[in-house]
Amino acid sequence: MTAPSTPAPRPTLEAVAAHAGVSRATVSRVVNGGAGVRSSLAGRVLRAVDELGYVPNRAARSLVTRRHDAVAVVIAEPETRVFADPFFAQQLRGISKELTAHDSQLVLLLVEGRDDYARVGRYLAGGHVDGALVFSVHLDDELPDIIRRSALPTVFGGRPDRGGECAPYVDCDNRGGAREAVRHLRSLGRKRIAHIAGPPDQTSAVDRLDGYRDVLPEADPALVARGDFTPAGGERAMRELLDRAPELDAVFAANDLTAAGALRVLHERGRRVPEDVAVVGFDDMEPVVEQTRPPLTTVRQDIEGMGRLMARLLLRGLERGGVRGAPCGDSVTAPASVITPTALVRRASA
Amino acid sequence: MTAPSTPAPRPTLEAVAAHAGVSRATVSRVVNGGAGVRSSLAGRVLRAVDELGYVPNRAARSLVTRRHDAVAVVIAEPETRVFADPFFAQQLRGISKELTAHDSQLVLLLVEGRDDYARVGRYLAGGHVDGALVFSVHLDDELPDIIRRSALPTVFGGRPDRGGECAPYVDCDNRGGAREAVRHLRSLGRKRIAHIAGPPDQTSAVDRLDGYRDVLPEADPALVARGDFTPAGGERAMRELLDRAPELDAVFAANDLTAAGALRVLHERGRRVPEDVAVVGFDDMEPVVEQTRPPLTTVRQDIEGMGRLMARLLLRGLERGGVRGAPCGDSVTAPASVITPTALVRRASA
Repeated sequence: MTAPSTPAPRPTLEAVAAHAGVSRATVSRVVNGGAGVRSSLAGRVLRAVDELGYVPNRAARSLVTRRHDAVAVVIAEPETRVFADPFFAQQLRGISKELTAHDSQLVLLLVEGRDDYARVGRYLAGGHVDGALVFSVHLDDELPDIIRRSALPTVFGGRPDRGGECAPYVDCDNRGGAREAVRHLRSLGRKRIAHIAGPPDQTSAVDRLDGYRDVLPEADPALVARGDFTPAGGERAMRELLDRAPELDAVFAANDLTAAGALRVLHERGRRVPEDVAVVGFDDMEPVVEQTRPPLTTVRQDIEGMGRLMARLLLRGLERGGVRGAPCGDSVTAPASVITPTALVRRASA
Repeated sequence: MTAPSTPAPRPTLEAVAAHAGVSRATVSRVVNGGAGVRSSLAGRVLRAVDELGYVPNRAARSLVTRRHDAVAVVIAEPETRVFADPFFAQQLRGISKELTAHDSQLVLLLVEGRDDYARVGRYLAGGHVDGALVFSVHLDDELPDIIRRSALPTVFGGRPDRGGECAPYVDCDNRGGAREAVRHLRSLGRKRIAHIAGPPDQTSAVDRLDGYRDVLPEADPALVARGDFTPAGGERAMRELLDRAPELDAVFAANDLTAAGALRVLHERGRRVPEDVAVVGFDDMEPVVEQTRPPLTTVRQDIEGMGRLMARLLLRGLERGGVRGAPCGDSVTAPASVITPTALVRRASA
């Protein structure tokens, strides 16, 4: 054997074949994924690869180092919502651009519902990806625990309720943005400012409600209705609000889709926007804010940029931490979480 | 050794640990994906697993049999189009439902462009999925060749130009559906029936153009314009057609999105639909046909059903062919392609 300071000559494909007693083609097939090779034969080849320390190319490197140049994205929503809400498309766009720039494959794991999380966990633990980007986690989701058990390097999109101590997250300043929206409505002289909240099991919705309450700690509880981040939820909540607080003169909606639904109901009930009721959304999601009548004043967050940032944090963590997952709480290899700023974008609705 | 007719007792996790000279926990970590285990140690465990024929659970089974209970979906379009065109969401919905029913994970591989196909090919060949569902392949795409080289069982969505001899596909009767659309316009007494074709590098577009020509072999070439399956392409093509054949009285558009763009231009130019110009689309895509003015007459294809069928064909092929990919042209294990019927759906536009 050569001394550690002198690098050993890299073993060749032929050496592996000779060592395993198989053909060169068989070694090649095994190190390129193993399709069409009996498992006993593949075992012999893997053994020889291991014993000789053979690292021929990218595919074989993945066998030895367990690096796959692939990153999983898990969105804790049913596939139907993933495709109906442009928020996810924008975040995926940012992630896709960043991963592509680093020649890492974006692997989107779709689910129908929570029953599928165990299967997602098996895939994540199965050695198919280098890390995971996870978003839209709900407060009672098992997903953060499942992901922690997979020991896979992870970055969350949006602050998770649990699991955040083990993995960094990227989120916007939900509470600060909400405060700015409500202060703006107040600066317009509005006295009865309502809020349509998002689902109470998502931290972004809770934070935005908290921001509303920061500015209006004495607000009438009848002015707060619960939505679910969808236009249909915004319609339902707006009807409720108009029924129990008909004198309201402003609405801060937890996201743009909710605001779009609220606007439809306000038109239906003959309220003029912004003359009778001023409306502010959250997100600044282009396909939505352009189509509302009137165009929507909203709180901008850089959704695509947050996607890029999530991918960048993960890739940087993988480089620093090597190919193994950083253990939970390891502050040396785990990058810090990032909170991105928001900004009020004024259009015609408020 | 026991005789082949008497099943050997299944080796335990403990037996593997003893054989490899490692702890039970190390074996468990390796067979569950190997995170946090040195590769030399993992190699010893894999060897012991192989020598004892240990099959403890799903994750370990995947190491031995190379079955992953996961199926890749590759859409040969940039990620931006995948999320902008509801066709893909509907097809993915069908695929997702079918895979979930069989507890197989849907792994969507997103790309930014064709430069990323080599990386997709590496992932497919890397032993991460049991098979692939591939759609929106273009005539000059390298993708079918890349997939063939991966030796992964594959089902195509839409007839591929090449590679179809190695893998079955699911497609609708594009040519027959187009004939029905054009015959319908002729039955309304229309004399100058135009066609906005899809991209000439996709077989579905070529087949629909052929169906138009089947019914109108003598049609003026000025009545055929080229679109690209998007609303913007439909707008451009409609302007061209009105400029060079202003007397046209009907349009068969290659898909609903194209028809939506054409309708906008017809309104803009003051043509009444259907009085002056009758319009027929293709797909019957709900979010599109409901929003056009007037509602769109179109050729229905069961997009979600086709997705389900693709997944079903692949899963059936995997069961029959075992865990290895069927070799190219193997007619025993490869299921046959399926052409699904289309139907004209009459609404107000024709």
